[in-house]
Amino acid sequence: MTNLTLSAITDPSDNPLKVDPVKLRDVIVKHHVGSIQNVVKHAYSLEEWHKLINEIQKVSLTETRLKIPFLYCIDAVHGTNFTLNSTLFPHNLGLAATRNPELVKLCAEITAKEVRASGIRYNFSPVLDVGRQPLWPRFPETFGEDVLISTIMGVASIKGYEGKSLNDFASVASCMKHFVGYSVPANGKDRAAAYIPEINLREYFLPPFKAAVDAGSHTLMVNSGEVNGTPVHASRYLLTDVLRNELNYKGIIITDWEDIKKLTERHRVAENHKEAVYLSVNAGIDMCIVPFDFSFYEDLIALVKEGRIKEERINESVKRILDLKFDLGIFERPYVEKEAVKNFGLPEYKQAALAAARESITLLKNADQVLPLEKNKKVLVVGPYANSLTALNGAWSYTWQGRKPEYFPKTDLTILEALKRKVGETNIVYKKDFKEIPSDVKPDYIIVTLGEDAYAETPGNTKSLELPSEDIEGVRNIVKMYPTIPLVYILTEGRPRLIREIEPHAKGVLMAYWPGSQGGNAVADVLYGDYNPSGKLPFTYPRYSGELMTYDHKWLDEAVEIVEPEYKYFYEFDPQYPFGFGLSYTSFELSNLKLSNDQLTGDSKIKVSVDVKNTGRKSGQETVELYSRDHFASVTPSVKRLRGFKKVELKPGETKTVEYEISASDLAFVGEDMKWITEPGAFDIMVGDLKVLLNYRRQ
Amino acid sequence: MTNLTLSAITDPSDNPLKVDPVKLRDVIVKHHVGSIQNVVKHAYSLEEWHKLINEIQKVSLTETRLKIPFLYCIDAVHGTNFTLNSTLFPHNLGLAATRNPELVKLCAEITAKEVRASGIRYNFSPVLDVGRQPLWPRFPETFGEDVLISTIMGVASIKGYEGKSLNDFASVASCMKHFVGYSVPANGKDRAAAYIPEINLREYFLPPFKAAVDAGSHTLMVNSGEVNGTPVHASRYLLTDVLRNELNYKGIIITDWEDIKKLTERHRVAENHKEAVYLSVNAGIDMCIVPFDFSFYEDLIALVKEGRIKEERINESVKRILDLKFDLGIFERPYVEKEAVKNFGLPEYKQAALAAARESITLLKNADQVLPLEKNKKVLVVGPYANSLTALNGAWSYTWQGRKPEYFPKTDLTILEALKRKVGETNIVYKKDFKEIPSDVKPDYIIVTLGEDAYAETPGNTKSLELPSEDIEGVRNIVKMYPTIPLVYILTEGRPRLIREIEPHAKGVLMAYWPGSQGGNAVADVLYGDYNPSGKLPFTYPRYSGELMTYDHKWLDEAVEIVEPEYKYFYEFDPQYPFGFGLSYTSFELSNLKLSNDQLTGDSKIKVSVDVKNTGRKSGQETVELYSRDHFASVTPSVKRLRGFKKVELKPGETKTVEYEISASDLAFVGEDMKWITEPGAFDIMVGDLKVLLNYRRQ
Repeated sequence: MTNLTLSAITDPSDNPLKVDPVKLRDVIVKHHVGSIQNVVKHAYSLEEWHKLINEIQKVSLTETRLKIPFLYCIDAVHGTNFTLNSTLFPHNLGLAATRNPELVKLCAEITAKEVRASGIRYNFSPVLDVGRQPLWPRFPETFGEDVLISTIMGVASIKGYEGKSLNDFASVASCMKHFVGYSVPANGKDRAAAYIPEINLREYFLPPFKAAVDAGSHTLMVNSGEVNGTPVHASRYLLTDVLRNELNYKGIIITDWEDIKKLTERHRVAENHKEAVYLSVNAGIDMCIVPFDFSFYEDLIALVKEGRIKEERINESVKRILDLKFDLGIFERPYVEKEAVKNFGLPEYKQAALAAARESITLLKNADQVLPLEKNKKVLVVGPYANSLTALNGAWSYTWQGRKPEYFPKTDLTILEALKRKVGETNIVYKKDFKEIPSDVKPDYIIVTLGEDAYAETPGNTKSLELPSEDIEGVRNIVKMYPTIPLVYILTEGRPRLIREIEPHAKGVLMAYWPGSQGGNAVADVLYGDYNPSGKLPFTYPRYSGELMTYDHKWLDEAVEIVEPEYKYFYEFDPQYPFGFGLSYTSFELSNLKLSNDQLTGDSKIKVSVDVKNTGRKSGQETVELYSRDHFASVTPSVKRLRGFKKVELKPGETKTVEYEISASDLAFVGEDMKWITEPGAFDIMVGDLKVLLNYRRQ
Repeated sequence: MTNLTLSAITDPSDNPLKVDPVKLRDVIVKHHVGSIQNVVKHAYSLEEWHKLINEIQKVSLTETRLKIPFLYCIDAVHGTNFTLNSTLFPHNLGLAATRNPELVKLCAEITAKEVRASGIRYNFSPVLDVGRQPLWPRFPETFGEDVLISTIMGVASIKGYEGKSLNDFASVASCMKHFVGYSVPANGKDRAAAYIPEINLREYFLPPFKAAVDAGSHTLMVNSGEVNGTPVHASRYLLTDVLRNELNYKGIIITDWEDIKKLTERHRVAENHKEAVYLSVNAGIDMCIVPFDFSFYEDLIALVKEGRIKEERINESVKRILDLKFDLGIFERPYVEKEAVKNFGLPEYKQAALAAARESITLLKNADQVLPLEKNKKVLVVGPYANSLTALNGAWSYTWQGRKPEYFPKTDLTILEALKRKVGETNIVYKKDFKEIPSDVKPDYIIVTLGEDAYAETPGNTKSLELPSEDIEGVRNIVKMYPTIPLVYILTEGRPRLIREIEPHAKGVLMAYWPGSQGGNAVADVLYGDYNPSGKLPFTYPRYSGELMTYDHKWLDEAVEIVEPEYKYFYEFDPQYPFGFGLSYTSFELSNLKLSNDQLTGDSKIKVSVDVKNTGRKSGQETVELYSRDHFASVTPSVKRLRGFKKVELKPGETKTVEYEISASDLAFVGEDMKWITEPGAFDIMVGDLKVLLNYRRQ
């Protein structure tokens, strides 16, 4: 039940990585530790991984009393980010923008292959936390603010990781994380207190976990934060009553990094470590990422000896852990599997990464059809992220924080390099520093890269979503120098940085999220029209710091009564870009929204269909999103909720009919009694600007 | 049970105010309306009020079937703000900064006198919502973010309004508002959805209401918003189970403006108005501010006739309303009371307003002792609020939005006028517009007024707490022109506007809140040292838009482990100014913090004492705040909680001992079972930087 980090068995004086044989035996043999995780400082080569894992495994199998093989665990959250020369994909936020669950599954399949090829069979991914607080530094790891997208993409990811059987050379165990409520800290900080009324927990945060449990994910990691005053690591209610008993979850519950200690050190609900162990084991955890020492091991043994924790409780957890090792084939093939190693670094992985990056890129503005750019024109490229691999890959990229370019594959291209490769060195002039803009370039276009460099977890805490004032000033300075040259912004960022003040200066705005290894090529392809963008925002892009709202907010006053007419006040929800927004180089028209029956009864289903036509001059993909709106309900309804999305590819002039199936459960909400319910009455069914009325009755 | 607004009985074509006799009789005689409230457009003179009220009363007493007198209700929230030439006090936020409950009570007493002198006996005040969301436009109406301050000040206010008996000529009925959870909308907007777990509702938001009920407040107004998906106007749980049954509240429950209609129109929990009436009467409301029509009256009658609402339920509400009219002496003396009228506009009211404004002003920065200013020096005064009465008085000042200077008393002085009066016209140069700063003034000091003009309720919604960029640019421009001249900012504002970017330029920063009628004089007195400031911030003044945190937040990580040492990250809670902060022109030293017993047992009490010494050269007042910190608890404890505050006045060199009494209930928190509990164990007792250890045991 003890899980230690790699540095607990390595020699700190030595770099490259070297296992300390004394520490190794102290951990594995003397203290019976059965799982290790993480890296020391940075990613390793495939060979280093193999050596490391085989070395630990050998001791486990030959020198321990029971000869039980050990299990290695890793965070491979957007590709196999801790193995050198792996393929990195867009982070989940970008993947959500693709609205393409098959692609998400493919990325997870490739990740599973490269992880298993590294000798590792357990991956702490995917994040199922719904990203409804954009300040949160792990927002980029979420699938955005919508419950349905998070659920569908989360399940796709799990199916990709776990495949048909964990015993397959192409599979790894997935980890549903982080149960539950991690993503909405009140102050926006990582691992900070969240206040979530039960009804919201069930409406917005439990559904992706429920679907993932039903999809068979084998493990689950606990939220490091506290929800409503109880740290989740100490919450028997959430871990046992809800997760085990209600959601019927049978797999491993693993802590996050050092979180049992945090019950004493941060949350202060346990007076000492032993009480912390008692609370968390009693709450339901099976495995503890301690991660540096034997405190969990020692206190747990003491608690069992004192009779405060029963041996049967330990057996339950141990059985779950052993089951996982059996399922993963570790007993059969404990060492690095040759058949798995073959799956590393295949050429098609780069193609998948390019496809995912391209499909994620979201065109947010294209005034006067400034994009795509013409290839023979002169382009001035400005900004700190244009020639950066770290800002393309973000968190968890060969290092935890992702900020060390020396570990990136030599073949990866920055945006600048990709642009030069596409249109030639002579067409591109680059200045990193806003303060050094040359005045004699005579560019046809100016591309400005804005956003965020890489960060992960707590070091990514931010005090504000506003862009740095130097960037704002930098852009203003460019506009002053080149007032007539069209400006295009490329945003590489893990969360929405506010561009309100400079957005009007731009003709084009391209949201790239953190697009991964092939991000440079993908951006270049979109900029020059070699790929027609189709990404859709998976969150509401705020305009102001004081207006962080999701698309599915509750109704607000639209007007204040005319008591003092000059202060008549219309509230207008006016984000920078709405959820679901994203342009194409072609245009689409929706028509003919129809229901197979405008009366939905009991458990029956109806079909919703709508025609979508490519009315422009290029082939393109379009995601057609279906929303519902409950006219009246016993719990205040949202202004709208996403109920389905389908992506179609259309040639110019082509029309396709998109169909969705709707049943009562698609229109349900959590009632005051905390149970899901669909109440009889009227619903609007909406696609784009089209709307039809649906009536529901129980029978 | 129907309450209409004044415009329902007035002639809209006519200004000044004229009652329409046909409408009046339709309302009072035909539809039996028993209460009227509010103003049409702006405040009235004492005489207009008397004429209006006597005219309505005469019809009520002579032409109705039962001759029951009617009741007039008003919002007099910081003085009698809808009677011309009344005295306006600081808003509650400023009053909280005084840390002086006696002064709060005095302001309420004067308000009660001037309201009753106007012929009105029911005042919709005070706000008991704890102000923990600074974006909220009613933040200035709160007593700030702390529960204890809100409770003590709220009760002081209620005692001031209600006096010994409502039948007294100096008393009015108070109104506890707005029950409950109004002050923490998730998106910061007025009347928007709040998500408050039950445990927080009880820990932070119910206590002021409980204390106010216990203090005997006669009426209560309901939160217009929704809490956890249920509009409070439809919440039987909150209004009946919690308010009536748990808090044992016996008085009137009144809706806020039009809020039963909003159950259909905004919240959409009632399909039509009749259902909305059913829901809210069933939830527990007694009186409905409809406020323009007879829809509540008609639908309620229909519901009774249909048997869905029982006549006994109506009788309960009617009895409460009649009881209030009896208590207020309206049956005995239905017309304007001569004895009450005498109490209007007495000279000592201005003195109280000045005292309150002076005590509220909070000195936030005084580098190099730039303040107080020398009186014979030249001062350049800049900014839009320097010569504004509206920005001194804020919301609810002679008009709802408080933006019409023509209705303010001619004797009120702006900051500019008060400065000129104090030091002479020739020492003051004024420029309203930042863009018109003269370069030839050679000032000794520059005063810049920043902050917010008046706003109230929904029109005060803001998209950001950042100061307007023109103001930031304006200040930077001044610094460029006069780089060596000391700068002092005066903030008049209802909520903290972020000054981070320009704060370093200022030697002095004075927070004036919205200080009321005497705000100009009070600011001038403090600036020139005729009054030694003692205000203490009643909220955490944020530095960044993405860090809105209260002082009593839960523990955060202080450091991230050194996995990548260069990203070692210490989280530092670093607001612009902390809760409780406020400087003086003298200095104070705390010492000798002692407990009468470091063991607190059962229901016993202990004394905490601390010495405070004036170590400077001026007399001054100091508020000594007592905090506690629970070392460990079953619900995550806050980093600290305010448990007491005392204000003392000290001559230079003088020392006083401040004493507080502590019992277990002062250290209690709401447990996971939603009940208040004090758990045995260790507590830090803290005053300033001093700390002693207290242990609690049950017996």
